[in-house]
Amino acid sequence: MKKQGMLMIISGPSGTGKGTVVKELVEKQQQFALSVSATTRSPRHNEIDGVHYYFYTREVFEKMKNENQLLEWAEFCGNYYGTPKEYVEQQMAEGKNVILEIEVQGALQIKKIYKDCILVFMIPPSAKELKKRLTERATEDEQTIQRRINRAIEEMEFVPQYDYIVINDTVCCAVNAICDIVKVEGMKSSRNINIKKQFKGEITSC
Amino acid sequence: MKKQGMLMIISGPSGTGKGTVVKELVEKQQQFALSVSATTRSPRHNEIDGVHYYFYTREVFEKMKNENQLLEWAEFCGNYYGTPKEYVEQQMAEGKNVILEIEVQGALQIKKIYKDCILVFMIPPSAKELKKRLTERATEDEQTIQRRINRAIEEMEFVPQYDYIVINDTVCCAVNAICDIVKVEGMKSSRNINIKKQFKGEITSC
Repeated sequence: MKKQGMLMIISGPSGTGKGTVVKELVEKQQQFALSVSATTRSPRHNEIDGVHYYFYTREVFEKMKNENQLLEWAEFCGNYYGTPKEYVEQQMAEGKNVILEIEVQGALQIKKIYKDCILVFMIPPSAKELKKRLTERATEDEQTIQRRINRAIEEMEFVPQYDYIVINDTVCCAVNAICDIVKVEGMKSSRNINIKKQFKGEITSC
Repeated sequence: MKKQGMLMIISGPSGTGKGTVVKELVEKQQQFALSVSATTRSPRHNEIDGVHYYFYTREVFEKMKNENQLLEWAEFCGNYYGTPKEYVEQQMAEGKNVILEIEVQGALQIKKIYKDCILVFMIPPSAKELKKRLTERATEDEQTIQRRINRAIEEMEFVPQYDYIVINDTVCCAVNAICDIVKVEGMKSSRNINIKKQFKGEITSC
């Protein structure tokens, strides 16, 4: 039987570069799988069902919600977004570490159910760097940037409820940090409760 | 100001090879310091005061005990053994990660005072390997070996109270595992409570 994978949730201010880190992790490290979210919004150009999102009707989404088939869900601008439980649990059963990139409220919702999921808060190396990254995107006006910065300050209030803080200085360092966290979490005694029994069994037979 | 070092306690069955791992860590990794124990027993040939042990009289030891200058203490075969608090705290203040190689009871005594100390339980790769290592020492008779194995089984009961289990397969792997634990513990949000404040301060000034 394969050892159960772990569930890791990554949150952090917009502009931190979480998406790039997660993409690199999933592409380069076979042990990770990215959770695919579900939404009721229409697919955009090039978006593939089951890859970028699971695209559901409101009826289907609401049925899943009511039948407890979502790890977390929220409604934004009239559309539902959520994390289907089945895919996550299936990947974990196959020994994959599943990564969810979601915002603070959803993360804390999941932590209530999965006590041993790992909450990672990713931040840029400095506030100055965050401002620089948001400005360099050049897709947003000054007002939107300021709103994102204010939101970042609000989100930082939740840091104490997260397990780890990863500083995204370079993508490579952040990827390594996450791999280290998974490795060390795997050594936790709470994740190795069988060792005691196994050792006792072995010792009596040798 | 230097970042405060961490306190790590390593326990585990006799014959696991903890001593070799700890020696390697302290010799090769500048970030670690080994705590020096205090005892009331007489120094053996070649043992240097302040290096192998602090050798104290019963009066001095009892005074330290009563004045709360010991992190933990115990009496074996009519001699006191203990961990002087001052040295440990001084090393941590200098940014060193202090390692204590002590038995289960002492470890749990310290965890009560230093909630954020890291408890590592080191085990051999298998019970068979433990038996082999104890037998190969060739310094002990069959009865003593059996007693040590029984003691190992008893000690395993305390594993759930430890934070991590490190398997000492090779010294190199065990050393790396401990370095990884220290690195990842350093990313814990509970050890970085200033980040939120720092980020807020930065953002208003940039």
